[in-house]
Amino acid sequence: MEYNSAIVEKAVDALSAFPGIGKRTALRLVMYLLKRPESEVAHLADSLIRLKTELQLCEVCGNVADSKICDICSNPARNKSIICVVEDFSDQMAIEGTGQFNGVYHILGGLIAPIDGIGPEQLSIAALINKVHHDQPKEVILAFSANVEGDTTMFYIAKKLRDLPVKVSCIARGIAIGGELEYADELTLGRSITNRTEYHI
Amino acid sequence: MEYNSAIVEKAVDALSAFPGIGKRTALRLVMYLLKRPESEVAHLADSLIRLKTELQLCEVCGNVADSKICDICSNPARNKSIICVVEDFSDQMAIEGTGQFNGVYHILGGLIAPIDGIGPEQLSIAALINKVHHDQPKEVILAFSANVEGDTTMFYIAKKLRDLPVKVSCIARGIAIGGELEYADELTLGRSITNRTEYHI
Repeated sequence: MEYNSAIVEKAVDALSAFPGIGKRTALRLVMYLLKRPESEVAHLADSLIRLKTELQLCEVCGNVADSKICDICSNPARNKSIICVVEDFSDQMAIEGTGQFNGVYHILGGLIAPIDGIGPEQLSIAALINKVHHDQPKEVILAFSANVEGDTTMFYIAKKLRDLPVKVSCIARGIAIGGELEYADELTLGRSITNRTEYHI
Repeated sequence: MEYNSAIVEKAVDALSAFPGIGKRTALRLVMYLLKRPESEVAHLADSLIRLKTELQLCEVCGNVADSKICDICSNPARNKSIICVVEDFSDQMAIEGTGQFNGVYHILGGLIAPIDGIGPEQLSIAALINKVHHDQPKEVILAFSANVEGDTTMFYIAKKLRDLPVKVSCIARGIAIGGELEYADELTLGRSITNRTEYHI
């Protein structure tokens, strides 16, 4: 496409770097922004920058947080003896949205994926094992997507926890095999939390 | 959805204000940004702000431009005696992309749409009429989408230009009726410029 303006072209290039957004969609977004007041665009730009400058990771669970300890970990009403291990914060949000879980979370920051060069040492698995050693929770729930990476990670963590005095469970496979946890409906996901089964290796 | 962070929530809200982007897509975009280096996010934010602070409208054609007169209007190789009138700059880009047109453009900034409360006075139609009076071009090409708003605008402008010594033409209806000009393929659009027909009322 021929842009009449280098400023428009740069904005289109920057927006089309997003996954799933091509040049035409980016151009539509730019045209939308051109019609909005400057304050709104400044607010958008500011909120994106704050993602990188102000957002922190909770020191306890590794989730994104506005302070050193996230709202869930600092909430005395949450049951600290059950830890739900998830891939990332969108999975944590999905489980929290079901209203079926009152324990705390541990965010791995990914799943073991040898093909993509992601091994256990790049994820916060060691921190999880240390936490279980130290805090001695009653149960660790492994809540991963039902795919190869999820199964591999589940197997790896369950093996690491095998000799510790903790029950290891995984969410019930109510989710279709091959499906992504993030997109499951709340009812199915809630049931899969309730009907979690002990993980045997 | 329950966000663990007000900063994430604000970014999701700001991104989901875009047309066609919902909360879930916005959350995916936020997760993508969280994994990118700070410099890249700063670059994106900066390029969006510059859209509002640095981008100008060409004083001649009304197109977006990096200076007071856009590259096309200031190009001596362009034929100033043929003016192609378009709805907005994405339509101008689409026509420019065909390589079939060597005249200049006039951007209306929209189409007449009484249902949306857009009348002729909100568009730069008066400026177009003045320009034809003053510069006396040989031809005005009306290049609008083939829908009710496009036809209404075409009729209105052709009526205004009827008594002036200028040929008024419209792009050939090679585009499917009901289709949006912006999404036509370059071949069809190029042919519709070449086979433009005189507009009779």
